[in-house]
Amino acid sequence: MTGVVTGLNPGVMTEPAAPDPLLRLHGANRDSGMDGVGQHAGLNKGAQPDQASDLARLVASLLVVRCSGHLADGQRRYPRWELDNATLQRLLGAGVGGVILLGGSAAELRLRTRQLQAWAATKLLLCADVEEGVGQRFEGASWLVPPLALGRLHGDDPAAAEELAERYGSCSGREARALGLNWVLGPVCDVNNNPANPVINVRAWGETPATAGALAAAFVRGAQAQGVLCCAKHFPGHGDTASDSHLELPLLPHSRERLEIVELPPFRAAIAAGVASVMTAHLLLPELDQERPATLSAAVLTGLLREELGFGGLVVTDALVMEAITAHHGAGEAAVLALEAGADLVLMPADADAAMAAIVAAVEQGRLGRERLEASAERRRQALASLRGGSQAAAGSVDEASPEPLGHLAAAGSPAEDALKPLGPLSNGPISADRQLALELVQRSLRHQGGRVSLPAKSPAATPAINLIRVDTALGCPYLQPTAPALTLATASGFRPVVLDGCSPSPWWIGLEEASDGGADGRDEDAESRSTGTPIAADGPLDLARLGEGPVLLQLFVRGNPFRGSAAGREPWEAVIRQLQSAGRLAGLAVYGSPYLWESLRPLLEDGIPAAWSPGQMPLAQVELLAALGLGSPSGRGDGFTD
Amino acid sequence: MTGVVTGLNPGVMTEPAAPDPLLRLHGANRDSGMDGVGQHAGLNKGAQPDQASDLARLVASLLVVRCSGHLADGQRRYPRWELDNATLQRLLGAGVGGVILLGGSAAELRLRTRQLQAWAATKLLLCADVEEGVGQRFEGASWLVPPLALGRLHGDDPAAAEELAERYGSCSGREARALGLNWVLGPVCDVNNNPANPVINVRAWGETPATAGALAAAFVRGAQAQGVLCCAKHFPGHGDTASDSHLELPLLPHSRERLEIVELPPFRAAIAAGVASVMTAHLLLPELDQERPATLSAAVLTGLLREELGFGGLVVTDALVMEAITAHHGAGEAAVLALEAGADLVLMPADADAAMAAIVAAVEQGRLGRERLEASAERRRQALASLRGGSQAAAGSVDEASPEPLGHLAAAGSPAEDALKPLGPLSNGPISADRQLALELVQRSLRHQGGRVSLPAKSPAATPAINLIRVDTALGCPYLQPTAPALTLATASGFRPVVLDGCSPSPWWIGLEEASDGGADGRDEDAESRSTGTPIAADGPLDLARLGEGPVLLQLFVRGNPFRGSAAGREPWEAVIRQLQSAGRLAGLAVYGSPYLWESLRPLLEDGIPAAWSPGQMPLAQVELLAALGLGSPSGRGDGFTD
Repeated sequence: MTGVVTGLNPGVMTEPAAPDPLLRLHGANRDSGMDGVGQHAGLNKGAQPDQASDLARLVASLLVVRCSGHLADGQRRYPRWELDNATLQRLLGAGVGGVILLGGSAAELRLRTRQLQAWAATKLLLCADVEEGVGQRFEGASWLVPPLALGRLHGDDPAAAEELAERYGSCSGREARALGLNWVLGPVCDVNNNPANPVINVRAWGETPATAGALAAAFVRGAQAQGVLCCAKHFPGHGDTASDSHLELPLLPHSRERLEIVELPPFRAAIAAGVASVMTAHLLLPELDQERPATLSAAVLTGLLREELGFGGLVVTDALVMEAITAHHGAGEAAVLALEAGADLVLMPADADAAMAAIVAAVEQGRLGRERLEASAERRRQALASLRGGSQAAAGSVDEASPEPLGHLAAAGSPAEDALKPLGPLSNGPISADRQLALELVQRSLRHQGGRVSLPAKSPAATPAINLIRVDTALGCPYLQPTAPALTLATASGFRPVVLDGCSPSPWWIGLEEASDGGADGRDEDAESRSTGTPIAADGPLDLARLGEGPVLLQLFVRGNPFRGSAAGREPWEAVIRQLQSAGRLAGLAVYGSPYLWESLRPLLEDGIPAAWSPGQMPLAQVELLAALGLGSPSGRGDGFTD
Repeated sequence: MTGVVTGLNPGVMTEPAAPDPLLRLHGANRDSGMDGVGQHAGLNKGAQPDQASDLARLVASLLVVRCSGHLADGQRRYPRWELDNATLQRLLGAGVGGVILLGGSAAELRLRTRQLQAWAATKLLLCADVEEGVGQRFEGASWLVPPLALGRLHGDDPAAAEELAERYGSCSGREARALGLNWVLGPVCDVNNNPANPVINVRAWGETPATAGALAAAFVRGAQAQGVLCCAKHFPGHGDTASDSHLELPLLPHSRERLEIVELPPFRAAIAAGVASVMTAHLLLPELDQERPATLSAAVLTGLLREELGFGGLVVTDALVMEAITAHHGAGEAAVLALEAGADLVLMPADADAAMAAIVAAVEQGRLGRERLEASAERRRQALASLRGGSQAAAGSVDEASPEPLGHLAAAGSPAEDALKPLGPLSNGPISADRQLALELVQRSLRHQGGRVSLPAKSPAATPAINLIRVDTALGCPYLQPTAPALTLATASGFRPVVLDGCSPSPWWIGLEEASDGGADGRDEDAESRSTGTPIAADGPLDLARLGEGPVLLQLFVRGNPFRGSAAGREPWEAVIRQLQSAGRLAGLAVYGSPYLWESLRPLLEDGIPAAWSPGQMPLAQVELLAALGLGSPSGRGDGFTD
C-alpha cells in the first residue's frame, strides 16, 4: 500500500525531515568482512563496512529503503521519506539490499539506478510502484489505463482481456528493465468488491476473484518474461476494506472460508504463474490473528502464505512507515516483528538505522534466529539469480540489458553511440509496440454516448463557455500540466477553464442566510460581520453566478472513492448535473478514472447530452475521450501524443 | 523576449502543432559538400546533407531552432513550438547551427545536449533563457533571485552588488557549461524605469542606466570567464514599454538623445565587458525607423549597434515566432528582413524550413548578398572558437568540460566512475559555492517587518486558520509543488491552504444584486434564474464567508505587472489587506517577486502586522521568508534545501 503513502495530501507531509542522529550499525561480531561485498567500501565515508559484522550486513541486505528517482537532494518531493544522497551512500555501502524509487523522468531514473548500484556493496533490488505502466511514476515511459479497465473488459471478452493484460505486463517489465529497475511492485491481487474502497479501487484487476486472478496471472507472465520480478499485493487481500480512511488499521472481519472464496484466489493464481514475491497488507484479520496485522502476523505470513499456499518466493512487507504500523510499534520493533512473522524483506522502515539495530539486537538476544534471516537472504539471492542475466551478474555490477537496440540514434561503434549510450532505449519515449498498446487500451475502455459537444460560437459577442475541471490536486498534477489536452483542446473550442481542487475557494452556493449576514455592498466596514457567518456548506449546487455565464463542459478526474471528494469535502456532482441540465447549460460530461462515479452520473443525463468515460486520466486518455466528444482529433492525427 | 512566449497562458497554445508539410531545402548549387561538416551525415535519414548545397548549409547554420530539454517527444510541454525529434534530427543533420532549450531537469538536459550535438552536422550553439540561474529553467541546478534584487542592493552598496552579480554570472556560466550549454541568453540590459512593465520588470538588473550597466557587465565577466557566451538583450532597450499587452508591437517614442541617456548605457557597458552577442527587441522606435521594428531595422542593427556602438560580435534576433513579428510578416520574409537589417542569427523562426528556403531564394535573387551571410557565419565560428576549449573542439564533438571533478562519487578509473560519468558534475545538485550564493542572495534581498506570525492554537476546537496563496498558474507551477515550503511550513503551523490562480473560481465578493438574483435556497429550480446574473466582478473584497473563518496568512507570488493579476482580471490586494485588517484577521503578509507590489502594500499595514518580501519565488526564498515570519527554520537547519 505504498500508494497510500505517496498519495497523502500536502498537509500530512509538513514536518521537515529531522536530521536524525545517524545511528551507527553495531553488532557483536566486528571482525572484518568476507565474500567480497565490501568491494565498494572506498565509496563509503560514513560507516566502515569492512568492520561491520557479517550479521549487520546480513540484516542490511533485507532492507528496502526509499529514495527519489531524481538525482539531486534538492529535487526530492518528499524529503521526509526520501533519503538524502549522503545517507543513501552510507546505507548502500553498508549493504542495504534494496531501494524503492518514486519521481523523476525515465531518463533520470536510468541514471539514478546506475548511481545507486554504483554506491551499493551488493547487487540491488530496485523497485517501484509501477502498477499502471512505468510512465505512471516516471515521465517519458508508457502510462497505461488502470487495471480495472481490463477487469471490466474481461466480463465480455476474457481472451482479449487476458492477452492485453499479458502485454500490459510485458510493456511494464520491458520498460522497468530498460530503466534499471528489476522489481515491479505489481500486480495488485486485491478483489475490488467494494466500490467505496478508498485505496484499491481501479488499481485492482477485477471485481471478482476469477477475473482478478486471471488477469493478475497474465500480468505476471508478461512482466517476468522480460526479466524483472513481480510482486502480488496486498496479501491476503485489501479489496474489501471500508472507505473510512480515518481508521488507523483497516479490519477485515472475514472467516478463513470466506477468504478462500474471495480474497485468496488471485494470490493463488499469481503464485501458480510463478510470481517472485508477495507484499503483505496492513490489515487486521481477527479470524486469523486477533492481535497482529497481517504484515506482522505469523499466522498470516507463515501459516497461511508459506505453509497453506506453499509460497516459496520473497515475502516483503508493505511500507512499515505507514501509520497503521508506525503508530503501534516503534520503527525497530515493527521490523523485528515482521521478520519474526515470516517476512523476508522490510520495506521503508520508518528509520533504517533503528530497524537494523533492533534486528541485530533481536538476533543477539536469541529472539530471532540467524538461520531465519539467512533463509530470507537466500531467497533474495535466488530471486536475483532468476532474472535474465541475473545469474552472471557480479555483485555490484549494473544490469546493462537493452532489449531495444539504439537503432537510428547512432551507428554501432561510432563516437556518437558512445555519447548516446547513457540515454538508453527509452530515450525517445516508448517503442512503437508499447505506444500501440497504450492507445489500444484507451480505445477499448472508452465509453461514449450522446454524440458531440455543441461548440460555442467564436465571435467576440458570443456567450462564453466554461470548461469546469475537477482534480484532486492542481499543484504538480502529472496529468494536468498547463498544456494538458483537457485544457487546450477545450480552450481551442471556446471553453474557458475553471479548475477546482481541494485547495480552491468553494464554488458551491451559499444560502442567503450567510450571504446576507454582513450586508451586501462589499465595503470594508462590513467585512468583520460577514466573516462571522457559518462555515461554507459544500453540498449545495454550484454557484452559477460566480461561475459565470454560458454552457459548461464538466470534466471530472476522480479515482479512489467516488463519493468522497477533495479535501474540501463531499462534492455533489449528481446535484451539479441536475442543476446544469435544468438550466440548459450542460454542454457535456467527461469522467476520467472511476467507473463508479460514471455509473452514478449516467442515469441522470438527459437524452443527447454528450458524455464519455475513460478509466485513464493521462493525456492520451484525454485526447481520445475529447475526440469522441468532438473536441480535437484522436491520436495520430493531432500533435503526436502517441508518437 | 523569449520569456514572453514561454509565459503565455494555456489558452494561447491550443492548436496542436500541425504536421507541416516538410519543406525540403533547395538551392542552385547542388554539388557535394566540403569542410567536413557532413561527418555525421550517416545519422540523418531525412535530408541528404551531402547533396545539400553549400548555400543551404550556410543558411542553415544561421538558424537557432527550439526544442524541449526533455528527451522524448511525449514529454514536450509546448509541442506547437518545440520541434519533435524526427524534425530536429533532419534539421540538425542539414546543418542548422543552434538550438534553444526549455524544460527538463539538469540531468536530462546534460543528456539532451549530447544527443543534439550527436545529431548535428556542425558544432552547435546551445542556448537557454537562464537569466536567473540555470535552475530557473532546469530543475536541480541553482535557481537565483531575479536580477533586480541586486539592482536594489546596488544603491546601498555598489561594490557588494557588483561582486554578487559577477558570482551570479559565474554560477550561471559554470552550470550552463556543465550541462552542455555554451550560450547563456542573458544579461537583460533593459532599464526597468517603468514599474508597470509587464515583461521586463524584475528580470532587469537595474532601474537606472548606471546600475543596470554596472551589474550587467559584472554578470558578463563572471559568466564568460566560465567558458560560455553571453547575450545582452533586448537591444536597444525594452525597459520603458507600456503595460498594455494587447499592443501587438510595443512602441518606444524616444529620441536618439534620450536613448543615449537611458537605454543604451547598459548595452555599452556589456559590450565594453566583451559580451559575445546582442539580442534584438521587437519594438518600434519611430525616431530611428518609422517602418520596421528594431529586430528588422537596418537603422537599429547596422546603423546604431554595429556602426555607432561598434559591436563586432553576434547579433541574434529575439524569437521571430512572436506575434509582434509573425503577425506582420511571413515566417520566411521575417527571417530575410532580419538578416538584411544586420542580424547574424535567426532565433525560433515560425517555420525553419520556410525561413531557410526564403533566405536561399533571397540570395539567389540577389536581394541578400552571400558575403553578408558568410560574414555572419564567420562571426559565429569566432564566437565558438572563443569558448574555453572551443578552438580545439572539432566540429561535431561534444564539449566535455567538467569544471568540478566527480569527487566523492567515484574513485578515478574505477568501474563506478564509468557508470557515473554521464551523470555529470551537477548530478548531486549545485556545488557548495553555488548553494552558498543562492542563499546569500536570498538573505541579502529579504525584507521583513512586524515580527512573527501568531500561530493558531493546535487543539481541535481552535479557530482554523487560512493560508491564502496567489500564483499565476497552479498547474505545473515550478515553485509551488505540493511539498513547497509555502504550503508545508504554513500547514505545519496550522494554516489550511487556499490556492488562487487564473483558473480558480472567483473568491471575490458578489453584491446582493447578483446573489439574490435567483433566490437563495439553492434548489435546482432556481438555477436557471441565478445563472442569468451579471458577470462576476472581481474587484470587490474577498468573500470571507466563502473563504471560511480564522486568521489569514496572505502569500502573493506576483511578478511582471503587479497591477494586473491573473487571467481572472485585476486583483484588489490593497482592498484585501484593508478588509482583513479591519476584521482583525490578517495574520501576516508574504510577497514573493515584485518589489512594486510590496511597496504598494507596505504602507497599508497596521503596526506589528508581520510581513516580508523576497524578490525570489523559489523554495529557498519561501523557506527564508517564512522563517523570518516565524514559520519553520531557515535553511541549513530544516530539511536541506541548500544541501
